[in-house]
Amino acid sequence: MARIVMKFGGTSMAGIERIRNVANRVKREVEAGNEVAVVVSAMSGETDRLVNFCREASPLYDPREYDVVVASGEQVTSGLLAMTLQAMGVKARSWLGWQLPIRTSDAHSSARISAIDTEVLGAALASGEVAVIPGFQGVTDDDRVTTLGRGGSDTSAVAVAAAMKADRCDIYTDVDGVYTTDPRIVPKARKLRQVTYEEMLELASVGAKVLQTRSVGLAMKEKVRVQVLSSFDGAPDGATLPGTMIVGEDEIEGTSMERQLITGIAHDKNEAKVTLVAVPDRPGAVATIFSPLADANINVDMIVQNVSHGTGSTDVTFTVPQAELARALDVLEKARGTIGFEKLVHDTAVAKISVVGVGMRSHAGVAAQMFKSLADRGINILAITTSEIKVSVLIHEDYTELAVRVLHTAYGLDAEDKVEA
Amino acid sequence: MARIVMKFGGTSMAGIERIRNVANRVKREVEAGNEVAVVVSAMSGETDRLVNFCREASPLYDPREYDVVVASGEQVTSGLLAMTLQAMGVKARSWLGWQLPIRTSDAHSSARISAIDTEVLGAALASGEVAVIPGFQGVTDDDRVTTLGRGGSDTSAVAVAAAMKADRCDIYTDVDGVYTTDPRIVPKARKLRQVTYEEMLELASVGAKVLQTRSVGLAMKEKVRVQVLSSFDGAPDGATLPGTMIVGEDEIEGTSMERQLITGIAHDKNEAKVTLVAVPDRPGAVATIFSPLADANINVDMIVQNVSHGTGSTDVTFTVPQAELARALDVLEKARGTIGFEKLVHDTAVAKISVVGVGMRSHAGVAAQMFKSLADRGINILAITTSEIKVSVLIHEDYTELAVRVLHTAYGLDAEDKVEA
Repeated sequence: MARIVMKFGGTSMAGIERIRNVANRVKREVEAGNEVAVVVSAMSGETDRLVNFCREASPLYDPREYDVVVASGEQVTSGLLAMTLQAMGVKARSWLGWQLPIRTSDAHSSARISAIDTEVLGAALASGEVAVIPGFQGVTDDDRVTTLGRGGSDTSAVAVAAAMKADRCDIYTDVDGVYTTDPRIVPKARKLRQVTYEEMLELASVGAKVLQTRSVGLAMKEKVRVQVLSSFDGAPDGATLPGTMIVGEDEIEGTSMERQLITGIAHDKNEAKVTLVAVPDRPGAVATIFSPLADANINVDMIVQNVSHGTGSTDVTFTVPQAELARALDVLEKARGTIGFEKLVHDTAVAKISVVGVGMRSHAGVAAQMFKSLADRGINILAITTSEIKVSVLIHEDYTELAVRVLHTAYGLDAEDKVEA
Repeated sequence: MARIVMKFGGTSMAGIERIRNVANRVKREVEAGNEVAVVVSAMSGETDRLVNFCREASPLYDPREYDVVVASGEQVTSGLLAMTLQAMGVKARSWLGWQLPIRTSDAHSSARISAIDTEVLGAALASGEVAVIPGFQGVTDDDRVTTLGRGGSDTSAVAVAAAMKADRCDIYTDVDGVYTTDPRIVPKARKLRQVTYEEMLELASVGAKVLQTRSVGLAMKEKVRVQVLSSFDGAPDGATLPGTMIVGEDEIEGTSMERQLITGIAHDKNEAKVTLVAVPDRPGAVATIFSPLADANINVDMIVQNVSHGTGSTDVTFTVPQAELARALDVLEKARGTIGFEKLVHDTAVAKISVVGVGMRSHAGVAAQMFKSLADRGINILAITTSEIKVSVLIHEDYTELAVRVLHTAYGLDAEDKVEA
């Protein structure tokens, strides 16, 4: 017997037929003698619909009320899955975020899970009942509804798995695993059988879209074994096909010699570039920009400060998620007096392209090869960031697919056919 | 300064433009110096959408999970109205059923409100904050989500008004008041300026669709002054036009001499007729039928037991809401052994037509006139029920509009134009 957390994304929950398919997969695990908690997303499209209502109501909506609105999507699918399981003869009930409870910080619309009460959940699982838990949602200490940010259901699943000391956290999605890059862009992309937490963290954070960044970070910290697999594919007998296991570096099979230098290429079109023109070039100037953004829980990513040429002022460029752009601009306009910039410009027609791999730690020249490959095709680089296992560049979004294809070939990731080499 | 509860129905909340219109009406009351609590329905069509998901998931869905699913619609509109009010500079926050809390019985999908905590709500109103409360929903003592049955938001509003000792409970809807009958069927229907609780109770319960029955009963019991008015019409300056006041019989203006004999004609196509053929004619037989239905919280309305003719068996016919028909049939089939009927038949092509008026207490012959008027047009009566101020008949639904028109004329309710006589 194992204790398993299963998580199903929006496309897996889109409509009753698909929810029945999900219920069948859950039933199979229960019949195998496992204790099962299921974390569900809203039906695909539903969260967008709710978010659009909020934006329409007020561009600067109160995030506390936003959370009340958007948390409803997962409430719906939780109830529907629980009743579908019951109809199949599987004991089940839904547990909403406030019922368990799943406690979070009060950073509304991007809250962090602080604690999950394991008492009721443990008792439910021990009684042989499947616990259906809405992802994405929680409550603050003073019982206000929170959400974890887009894709937060993955984090909910990993957090439940960690709290319940689950043997495995299976993330069912509409792809059958993690690929070297987006197969819709590069048909020769290969499915990875294993990937390290660190690599997945970079791949997820730069837009591989398979898992939410925070869920991977949490899995790494809590040592939760995560598997990404498809809720649509299956063996002829209905059994689930293995996906990609996300594990610690020490668990990776084969020696580091045999590993590819680069594991994957990711792209992300959801960033927006913001430039503050002519900021006074004095100590502490940058803090006046980024402190109010941090206070507003806005995630700033790439930061470029142009060298000042004795004019006494400098330009500061950075990226934020497009979803947070309106709030970011508002925060900056309000702080105009203390920052003292001349002009605030922004651009959403940008894309971030990243090459990722633990192998690059021991190899020089990864970044240089990237810049050269892009330059050879005339692709202009607007900003650069690097980490130990990643190099990212910001480019004009029109070049996204070209850049991904060029880099996939340049780093030798193209496969003859779509199976792991 | 007054304390007012405002309630807005589904058509008033259908989309952000309409929610803004609602917010403007709320703002007007706040600016007049009133303390305001607002109770909202889900966007029109939303509850149907959610109910259909449940039916599709399982015709015999778990009502506890059904409540989790359908309660989400009002959660969405509460958050949206709160943020819209804030955007207009009106202090507001949403209070979900479990947050206040609104305690109910555990009769899931048709729960009854047992208590509303007035402490937090009173403090919120006293601070000048508008409290936006989702109608239709509550929680049991063990914190499971409940709903009050279709149209339950009216009951939520009246219950909040009673708990908060509000001066008035204004029910905003898509009609501008209570009419002598459905104006879409009878263009000569007249709007009533006042109607008694008792009359409204009968008009609502037989399908006048303006207010949920239970809300009127509760208003009568708690002496809540209820006003039905339109959220779409308005004076040129945006002020609200008066609707129909629902008051005690002693508050009705004019003497009883001047009152019409009949106040209105109602119709209801949401009933289903169920007949148990050949039930053993023995003492206690009827209890074996209706006890299990009561246990399942199914509302039985008209009951007709045919006279037995020495065959030792009898037919029992009754009506239930169509929405509860599947469950009713299931309950009866399961009790077949104890009831011992031969056959179970049902018919949804029926309509209930009722004539209502406190005036009929002192007048004989109301029922006789009704039967004669219908017989003159060849309309067959399937069942009859009467109360002190109401006579209802069940007919084939094809005759609904004809029957309503015939009776509206027969009781002298036709107006020359659509203003109160």
